[in-house]
Amino acid sequence: MRDLAAHPELFSLNTATVRMQWSLAQAVEGCARHGIRAVALWRDKVAEAGLDRAARLVRDAGLRVNDYCRGGMFTAPDLEAAREDNRRAVDEAVAFGADCLCLVVGGLPPGSKDIAAARRIVADEIALLLDYARPLGMKLALEPLHPMYAADRACVNTLRQANDLCDRLGPGIGVAVDVYHLWWDPELEGEIARAGRAGRILGFHVCDWLVPTTDLLLDRGMMGDGVIDIRRIRGWVEAAGYDGFVEAEIFSANNWWKRDPDDVVKTCLERYRSVC
Amino acid sequence: MRDLAAHPELFSLNTATVRMQWSLAQAVEGCARHGIRAVALWRDKVAEAGLDRAARLVRDAGLRVNDYCRGGMFTAPDLEAAREDNRRAVDEAVAFGADCLCLVVGGLPPGSKDIAAARRIVADEIALLLDYARPLGMKLALEPLHPMYAADRACVNTLRQANDLCDRLGPGIGVAVDVYHLWWDPELEGEIARAGRAGRILGFHVCDWLVPTTDLLLDRGMMGDGVIDIRRIRGWVEAAGYDGFVEAEIFSANNWWKRDPDDVVKTCLERYRSVC
Repeated sequence: MRDLAAHPELFSLNTATVRMQWSLAQAVEGCARHGIRAVALWRDKVAEAGLDRAARLVRDAGLRVNDYCRGGMFTAPDLEAAREDNRRAVDEAVAFGADCLCLVVGGLPPGSKDIAAARRIVADEIALLLDYARPLGMKLALEPLHPMYAADRACVNTLRQANDLCDRLGPGIGVAVDVYHLWWDPELEGEIARAGRAGRILGFHVCDWLVPTTDLLLDRGMMGDGVIDIRRIRGWVEAAGYDGFVEAEIFSANNWWKRDPDDVVKTCLERYRSVC
Repeated sequence: MRDLAAHPELFSLNTATVRMQWSLAQAVEGCARHGIRAVALWRDKVAEAGLDRAARLVRDAGLRVNDYCRGGMFTAPDLEAAREDNRRAVDEAVAFGADCLCLVVGGLPPGSKDIAAARRIVADEIALLLDYARPLGMKLALEPLHPMYAADRACVNTLRQANDLCDRLGPGIGVAVDVYHLWWDPELEGEIARAGRAGRILGFHVCDWLVPTTDLLLDRGMMGDGVIDIRRIRGWVEAAGYDGFVEAEIFSANNWWKRDPDDVVKTCLERYRSVC
């Protein structure tokens, strides 16, 4: 396993971790201040800054965008609008020279109880988006989300399911392994190995599962504050050949989003070294 | 598929649905008032009423106890105390002539991040409890719980995992299929069929997944108010040979637990006929 303490350059800050405190420009400055070399960026913050200005800021700072957040939501009522929006997301990812566009695929269409049908829509729509993204060289990172998001955020909920989908979709797509979503899965080690054999692990995201968890979306924990054996899972990912960034992504409405952002980043870096 | 509207006797009330409103004696009276023939009982309410009195009340009312809630929590700090308590739970289930003792197996031991180890403890402890329950003829119903409970309530989180465990444990154990915990699983249909082939489906529990869900434990929905295609899943369960009760179990701190219990039960029965 890689010694993270000796490799601060492998840390990536998902800027959602400080989304309440920092604009994109402030996040870029913050990364410089803390010696951070890679970021995951979100489209809303890019839109706020303006795409051209945002791309210039990031480029001038020498920051690598390992992950562009996000495409997906394929099960929206207006399929054509979702397609157009996803193509724009690919274009934006290209503008940043991002390593991949992360996909949160969407849950059930409004009024639907048919999750199998939602999953078919997702497969079809990703295939279409791949036709657009492949010639542009932009990889898509399918992110299986925790089953508690199956209804409203993503109906791809296990790494096995994501692997199966990638097998069918062919080149240009891989998976993002997020410990928060996947830590509980008894098949995780095997499915990580499978993803590694296919050369498709495009990201490794960390935060922690708190006990108790008080909100389904916005109560994620700082690495080390919960019950996930992050290092063990990182061991599996690296044994499967992953040599990319360790991306910290913490949605935390009542804790980390309320703190001084420099302290949040410092804590992330400290836990990256000591816990991840 | 069975026509539930023509078979009110297949309904079972899990008394947790009205736990805030009714004592065990009140629940027994309520069932009589509403023509309900089967119940799932909880140990705390039994203890409150006294075991002998509770068993007499239930027997005199001619109520069938299709499910006794619950054993498990095998990963507690004091293993020996948990064993003793689980044996008592079996004895109580026998006293009620229950069809099975439901098992919520427990999550991570305090301070542990090793979910694989927790799962090994659970397998070992169930094996021990089976040695006690088999001679008494009390079946154990392993209930896989939603992955959002993996840390603190149950580290058995999919029906595949429960089936695998049952395969290893031999006779005397089966599974409870609860739509709330399992509806999201892409492998659900196949694993229900597998459980059916093994003759091990011991229960079918219904409520609904609300969007949004505001609490991980206590915001379950009335059948029909959420996104679960309950009838489809019941179709799978019955195609797999299940001919037992449809048990309504709704934990709902801010809605159903605050309502008039007779209205709650009436609504359950109405939805049982029209939705389940």
